[in-house]
Amino acid sequence: MYPAFRSNCPIASALDLFGDKWTLVVLRTIFAGRHRFGELGGMAEPIATNMLADRLQRLEDFGLIERRVYSERPPRHEYWLTPRGADALPILQAMAAWSQQHIPDRWASPGWFAEGVPQDFYPKP
Amino acid sequence: MYPAFRSNCPIASALDLFGDKWTLVVLRTIFAGRHRFGELGGMAEPIATNMLADRLQRLEDFGLIERRVYSERPPRHEYWLTPRGADALPILQAMAAWSQQHIPDRWASPGWFAEGVPQDFYPKP
Repeated sequence: MYPAFRSNCPIASALDLFGDKWTLVVLRTIFAGRHRFGELGGMAEPIATNMLADRLQRLEDFGLIERRVYSERPPRHEYWLTPRGADALPILQAMAAWSQQHIPDRWASPGWFAEGVPQDFYPKP
Repeated sequence: MYPAFRSNCPIASALDLFGDKWTLVVLRTIFAGRHRFGELGGMAEPIATNMLADRLQRLEDFGLIERRVYSERPPRHEYWLTPRGADALPILQAMAAWSQQHIPDRWASPGWFAEGVPQDFYPKP
């Protein structure tokens, strides 16, 4: 499931998985309730189609999201958070809080995000 | 001080600054009390000298660290956290907690890190 890690440091290891400009932005968009490729490609930050596909594959490979089929013909799927992916919420919350404190004019966080807990986003049985 | 941002999203903006594999690893090492270039280059994860110099420059450009001269001849400096850099501690803590929960065999966090608050790392007057 995982790549080779640079060390056993938990911070470095997390960055081995999603230390890039896009992976956590895509994950954020799934937290926000967009689950289909076209929806994800329409987020505020313009992302190339091949980059989006690559980052979705990474997130799936690392177990943070899972695919769900919603159409058999043609085959189409949606991307949903796993518990492992939902557990990344505090990372996103900490990044957002830091930016709101230190960079002018950042968006305010909606309540579902700022006060959310990972369990809110676990797959429903 | 800052680059062009992809959007006003606070998460995407944070990743515009340190969305890569190395910047937060270098910052972690400064939190751990290593302040000189040679000390930073000796961390557990092998980093190329030019990469380390680039990431230190980024951290300084974005106001997360500052240089302090400790030798005039030859000119030598150390790298210390600013309040803005110290305020990134919760991001590192959230990443560490996620990895410890989801990746086997990660290092345990020392108490100064796991229970620390940003103010512990603010510059001393």
